[in-house]
Amino acid sequence: MTKNRIKPLILITNDDGVQALGINKLIEAIRPLGEIVVFAPDGPRSGMSGAITSIIPIRAALVKKEDDLTVYACSGTPVDCVKLALNEFLDRKPDLLIAGINHGSNSAICIIYSGTIGATFEGCVAGIPSIGVSLTDHSSHADFTQAANYGKLTAEKVLKNGLPNGVCLNLNVPAIPKVKGLKVCSQTKGRWTEEFQVGKGPFGNTVYWLTGVFLNEDPDNVLNDEWALDNGYAALVPLKIDMTDYAVMEMLKEWEGN
Amino acid sequence: MTKNRIKPLILITNDDGVQALGINKLIEAIRPLGEIVVFAPDGPRSGMSGAITSIIPIRAALVKKEDDLTVYACSGTPVDCVKLALNEFLDRKPDLLIAGINHGSNSAICIIYSGTIGATFEGCVAGIPSIGVSLTDHSSHADFTQAANYGKLTAEKVLKNGLPNGVCLNLNVPAIPKVKGLKVCSQTKGRWTEEFQVGKGPFGNTVYWLTGVFLNEDPDNVLNDEWALDNGYAALVPLKIDMTDYAVMEMLKEWEGN
Repeated sequence: MTKNRIKPLILITNDDGVQALGINKLIEAIRPLGEIVVFAPDGPRSGMSGAITSIIPIRAALVKKEDDLTVYACSGTPVDCVKLALNEFLDRKPDLLIAGINHGSNSAICIIYSGTIGATFEGCVAGIPSIGVSLTDHSSHADFTQAANYGKLTAEKVLKNGLPNGVCLNLNVPAIPKVKGLKVCSQTKGRWTEEFQVGKGPFGNTVYWLTGVFLNEDPDNVLNDEWALDNGYAALVPLKIDMTDYAVMEMLKEWEGN
Repeated sequence: MTKNRIKPLILITNDDGVQALGINKLIEAIRPLGEIVVFAPDGPRSGMSGAITSIIPIRAALVKKEDDLTVYACSGTPVDCVKLALNEFLDRKPDLLIAGINHGSNSAICIIYSGTIGATFEGCVAGIPSIGVSLTDHSSHADFTQAANYGKLTAEKVLKNGLPNGVCLNLNVPAIPKVKGLKVCSQTKGRWTEEFQVGKGPFGNTVYWLTGVFLNEDPDNVLNDEWALDNGYAALVPLKIDMTDYAVMEMLKEWEGN
């Protein structure tokens, strides 16, 4: 067994693309923890959710290979990146997957649209302890220092303790001068409203451009992730890939038959 | 109040595109139940999950307007379709959303990749009772008769009884001569394996084309959707949009602090 084999293997991906500041700050923070393989989209893939590419083939290119750090850029979605890395590029199963650091929050219902969380779920489905990390600042030159620290702290805890099967973590860090600490939270109930800016294209046709305002439908719940972020805490939500509502399953039993 | 206002308003979408046989068979089956608005992608969007389009604007075109049936084609993803219909095209909130009938199953873990389920979740987030319907046959000329019947039966039940807030339904129908009946199920634990066909592009570069074999990790569970489908039943799974694992949330409380 080589020296590298003793170190944890950590797969890093994101949805902002391999060139984004957020993933590079994450690589910097996580690098001391193990052998790092970065397998990330070759450009922005925000809002790609759990999308997969099946109609066309995808490609990947080696960007960089240094001691314990290998970086690939892939033409696919964040989920494609995870699938391709696991199936064709890694010679063993990673001990950890981290997606991020996303430029912008992925709290509350945003998890269902997020490519960062799509990749995190994919790691979880493959049986890898997986963490998505996001900062509540969309700017390309945001300060990722604290988000990277919380990402590293969480990664260390997960490497040490593991995670229950079928559960991954969604970490959001507020973009404020001094984060107060970590809160373990639930996914905030809410949705987006006023979602389109309506305009005209160059030939006079009407076009719709996605925008929106988040409506928090449970603002007084001190246990949810929006409350934590609004109050200066980093929010850690355990998400499960079994979405069955077992209570409702019992309720619907009377629909059976026919 | 006009006559139309008394009828339920039903929003229909899919991920195979407005031209697909599956959605047209669904429209045919559902049409007697209310006023129908179809707002579907203008072409195939399989595997788009909950993806949203934010980098470019989207468009929509009226395809057809008849008594109680209006059909739009949209350049966006399935989720974009639902968002745009609700925000800009409908003058009231639909009483029901149905996505499908998908060409191919969306059982087990496939829900996290499925554009059909992405659209279904989006309806649910907006507070609309929502159903995704899929047939276990990918072919463009599949026989949708039974899937359409089960879709209609489920739609009637949902229109009559409603659904709990935050819960939507995933209906899969097996492509067999005679479906045995409806089973209320849980999401099967499993994942895809052997996921890529590796080949060469025209310039000699290596390309990876998504394929795969589903691995059922809980094959003996008679309560899950794969079991139901394998045994000739239509499988109805209630899915919730709150993915928080509350038990794990308690376990992780000791990670709180800095």
